[in-house]
Amino acid sequence: MTSLPEPITALTAALGKLPGVGPRSAERIALHLVQADEPAVRQLAQTILTARERIRLCFVCGGLTETEPCSICSDGRRDPSLVCVVERPTDILSIEKANSFRGKYHVLGGKISPLNGVEPEDLRIGQLEARLTHEPIREVVLALPTDVEGDATSFYLAKQLATKGVKVTRIAHGLPAGSGLDFADELTLTRALEGRREMS
Amino acid sequence: MTSLPEPITALTAALGKLPGVGPRSAERIALHLVQADEPAVRQLAQTILTARERIRLCFVCGGLTETEPCSICSDGRRDPSLVCVVERPTDILSIEKANSFRGKYHVLGGKISPLNGVEPEDLRIGQLEARLTHEPIREVVLALPTDVEGDATSFYLAKQLATKGVKVTRIAHGLPAGSGLDFADELTLTRALEGRREMS
Repeated sequence: MTSLPEPITALTAALGKLPGVGPRSAERIALHLVQADEPAVRQLAQTILTARERIRLCFVCGGLTETEPCSICSDGRRDPSLVCVVERPTDILSIEKANSFRGKYHVLGGKISPLNGVEPEDLRIGQLEARLTHEPIREVVLALPTDVEGDATSFYLAKQLATKGVKVTRIAHGLPAGSGLDFADELTLTRALEGRREMS
Repeated sequence: MTSLPEPITALTAALGKLPGVGPRSAERIALHLVQADEPAVRQLAQTILTARERIRLCFVCGGLTETEPCSICSDGRRDPSLVCVVERPTDILSIEKANSFRGKYHVLGGKISPLNGVEPEDLRIGQLEARLTHEPIREVVLALPTDVEGDATSFYLAKQLATKGVKVTRIAHGLPAGSGLDFADELTLTRALEGRREMS
């Protein structure tokens, strides 16, 4: 059995490191690329480099942007009194797709995790506190993940920001839309019961 | 709703053209790349360009190779009297993986398809005939697809090569290994019955 030439196996290995690309699809993409039109392949490589070079993290919110500050931070139509705190830049996109939040954002860049050596000072918490003094922020909405580290980070932030004269809220956790009790795990049900609200 | 910066949407569109990469995985890979380490991203772009530049089609068999002639054509341990004709360069890999063919290969580069403007002279048939005069080839094994155009191409080649004093065979079509009658389609069953052989 003759194996593939080295440049193709090297490309397959590199593509296999991308998220969601398994060994078989990596090989399929590699074989496609080495047989594709050379200008198209050059164009793809250039598009990758251009995107990496032109995209940076907004110095205000920490989101992905081409301009500084980003289009959300510089959008005068968005509510400057409301800031939603998320873990990663892509979390902003998830919330924007829901199209139901009109405030601004702040990316922490991680969760507090002493076991992994992530302390509060490794996150963009100082930048958030600075924004509280320079911007007319009245409410901070925490939208961190619902795991142990996300919870710990939320509680840490709530305590930390309590002295800053700002309201700290947390997004609701409960049953997902369109889902019944039989599909909910125990933790989701516990959170849904804890978060029950009086019907008006 | 704020959309993604243009370099990311451009990258998502480019990645979405790769085989097996849908819009959602394209966006996921794009978001990964713009946040990945810059040296790693440069390395990936370079690996793509290197593979495309270094891989060419072997001038003898038409397979993918880094050297000319390719490692199969220049392998003295392979049977030079046997040549397997396939449609595409990657078909060689499929047969090599089965590890049961020890002859050489010839890539046609397509199938005869008048509707798509592919005539016999657009394929590497002349090169195959030239090999028959210069190489000690005694048998040509046709391993083209089992569709209408593949069949037409096989019959054309069998007729064309009949005058060259070479044996022309075709790989068997029938039930796949490990599969029962209940999973076979009508055409496969018809081919399997046509191809029945006496048990010794």
